[in-house]
Amino acid sequence: MIKKEIYLDHAATTYTDERVTAEMAPYFSAEFGNPSSLYALGRRAKDAVDSARTRIAKILHCKADEIIFTGSGTESDNLAILGTARAYKQHGAHIIVSAVEHHAVLHTAEALKKEGFELTLIPVAEDGIINPEDIKNALRLDTILVSVMYANNEIGTIQPIHEIGQIIKEFREKKIRNQNSEFRINEKTPFFHTDACQAAGALNMDAHYLNVDLLTFNGSKIYGPKGVGALYVRHGVRLEPIVYGGGQEKGLRSGTENIALIVGLAKALEIAHEEREAENKRLIELRNYFISEVERRIPKAILNGHRTNRLPNNINITFLDVEGEAVLLYLDNEGISVSTGSACTSTTLDPSHVILSLGVPYEYAHGSIRFTLGRKTTKDDLDFVLGVLPKIIQRLRDISPVRIEVGQKEVSHPEAFAGQGSKVKVGGKRYK
Amino acid sequence: MIKKEIYLDHAATTYTDERVTAEMAPYFSAEFGNPSSLYALGRRAKDAVDSARTRIAKILHCKADEIIFTGSGTESDNLAILGTARAYKQHGAHIIVSAVEHHAVLHTAEALKKEGFELTLIPVAEDGIINPEDIKNALRLDTILVSVMYANNEIGTIQPIHEIGQIIKEFREKKIRNQNSEFRINEKTPFFHTDACQAAGALNMDAHYLNVDLLTFNGSKIYGPKGVGALYVRHGVRLEPIVYGGGQEKGLRSGTENIALIVGLAKALEIAHEEREAENKRLIELRNYFISEVERRIPKAILNGHRTNRLPNNINITFLDVEGEAVLLYLDNEGISVSTGSACTSTTLDPSHVILSLGVPYEYAHGSIRFTLGRKTTKDDLDFVLGVLPKIIQRLRDISPVRIEVGQKEVSHPEAFAGQGSKVKVGGKRYK
Repeated sequence: MIKKEIYLDHAATTYTDERVTAEMAPYFSAEFGNPSSLYALGRRAKDAVDSARTRIAKILHCKADEIIFTGSGTESDNLAILGTARAYKQHGAHIIVSAVEHHAVLHTAEALKKEGFELTLIPVAEDGIINPEDIKNALRLDTILVSVMYANNEIGTIQPIHEIGQIIKEFREKKIRNQNSEFRINEKTPFFHTDACQAAGALNMDAHYLNVDLLTFNGSKIYGPKGVGALYVRHGVRLEPIVYGGGQEKGLRSGTENIALIVGLAKALEIAHEEREAENKRLIELRNYFISEVERRIPKAILNGHRTNRLPNNINITFLDVEGEAVLLYLDNEGISVSTGSACTSTTLDPSHVILSLGVPYEYAHGSIRFTLGRKTTKDDLDFVLGVLPKIIQRLRDISPVRIEVGQKEVSHPEAFAGQGSKVKVGGKRYK
Repeated sequence: MIKKEIYLDHAATTYTDERVTAEMAPYFSAEFGNPSSLYALGRRAKDAVDSARTRIAKILHCKADEIIFTGSGTESDNLAILGTARAYKQHGAHIIVSAVEHHAVLHTAEALKKEGFELTLIPVAEDGIINPEDIKNALRLDTILVSVMYANNEIGTIQPIHEIGQIIKEFREKKIRNQNSEFRINEKTPFFHTDACQAAGALNMDAHYLNVDLLTFNGSKIYGPKGVGALYVRHGVRLEPIVYGGGQEKGLRSGTENIALIVGLAKALEIAHEEREAENKRLIELRNYFISEVERRIPKAILNGHRTNRLPNNINITFLDVEGEAVLLYLDNEGISVSTGSACTSTTLDPSHVILSLGVPYEYAHGSIRFTLGRKTTKDDLDFVLGVLPKIIQRLRDISPVRIEVGQKEVSHPEAFAGQGSKVKVGGKRYK
């Protein structure tokens, strides 16, 4: 008997949609030209890249040349953050990011401290959502960049990007009227970047509506290929490149364009946006069903993040008194793939900085499991999981040295967990 | 009638070999896991990446964990150069590169000047080859890095990497015995990096024999996929990353690993090294046949670079009194794809810095055509080119305002050309 395979980790990475693979296929061995070449094969390659740019711009409601192709979401985040910080350093050296950013943003912002930048970290409320007023209060004349993710990769919480963008726009306008600063006032800064990797397939991607100056997304989370990302760069925003060379992508990302993956990225985004209305509806029903069934069947199961203002496919639940990794491995034995924390950090024992930012004890982070549904996920799949999960949790609780109660705020048995604590200070506004 | 298509620009990019495409195929939609995930699908993805690393290490005669995967050859070059320079800055701020490097090296080295680095540019002889003594004379106690490409992308000339590496090793040993410097002596520096993108499919890639500390290669020049590169980093060499995030690739290159392309890169390198002896022999015969036939049939046709110490597939010829771009377009009309300069710069009108570094006038650079043969190139293909090329050259010479003679060193009609001059000072040792 073949074991049922149930993949519930679409936030870690998606398979490439067969329609995307089909559209990429000719660009490996037939239409393989270098877009910088002047002969017909090269010109066709350039046309394919240009067309992908136009197709993406249509969805982002921006101009085609405001889209820069990169090698990953991580690289796009880095280009946005390092690129603006280094290009506008003479106008100030202050940046603001949220406490729940992906490491591609957090670690990059942290790296800038070595280059003399000061970092302000914005906390989130218990539901994982940022208060836009906190951004407003953190803005300074020397602030170069604000980076807040569109939707969180662990808990799926959707941030008020439009509102934050509006606050930043108003700050820029006010700044022009207030020139008594020690810095050379640049009315263009601060810029607003959002990491939309998790949001790209499900939410409104209109860069104009979102009030963003820079926006990151990639292929591997939207049923496109891995190894390709894009960065929306609003006209008027200068970036210092992070790699130098042949000057491709307006000099911002040198290296021969990966035509196949670029075409695949455009196709993946198109499919997602054609289907997202119906698909979101379907996923939200499944998501809510799963959450309520888990809460009904398993005691001391706590949903992390906002109950409804979250990605249609995201469920993140803490099972008190158990280790998430043990749950993961038991589920794996049943053919079910889920994650603890984000995949990018699941090979370390550090507790999730995102869960900790919700103001809960370590135990909550350690016992958290992320289930992220996908295009092929069915109610049958979820019922299968609901059939095995309560027994797994019960078995692990039977052998657990930990007993904490819902709502308990103190860490009861810190020695029972391996995590050494996060660098993110909960509730603190300065990044230590 | 279908027009014959003859692709002679394999140095710009190769098609992906069908055997490589086949090996990559499962990793898009079936084995698509995130290698950081702990469940079976993720572990299999990690195994695929690890196995690719081991397969490549076998060919480079290095340890598997000395191979770092990146998004392109350009990114590998940048990581090697920016990475060592930034990590060892306190030990000195001097780097040495050859005058004929790819822009991925030249522009990156140039970018470091903004960070306080001093750059020494090593000229080449008329045949395009570096004199290792020039490297020896340029080495200083504060030299952090030397970067010399293995084989040139435009003229195919192969550099004496083993000998240069030996000189650098000896310098490091001598340095330990000479501690009266103003810098904190680090006996590990200078490191030696080689950009082997053009060489990887054809030449000995034994990193130990080559005496290199860092070596770059990528997929798009060896019948592998575009969008993936590798960097060999010898144990003991520290690098500052250029992108930050989830900490993949030993923290040196964050971003979800692109399993499909990584597996494809390993397969492409394996195929090239299994076949290279026979294939090089075949290509060298074709190359020499083409060169001698062009010289026999077309007057004032001058081979650029060393006649034999060059890549088996590279032919670079200056046709005096003509514009290379016009030749390219006429050949394109016949279904023949070639390049002028390198593809990376062919969309600018600047004359090739590589051809200029040979000590010839602008006219030589402007009239140069690169023919790079490939696995499917046949003698029939070359005979077809030899049939149309003399007429094209003659037609262009008939309308050319320029008349210069072989061996003429002065620029006769500078106003006839659009190039604004290269930043590379021919024969000069300091980069301006």
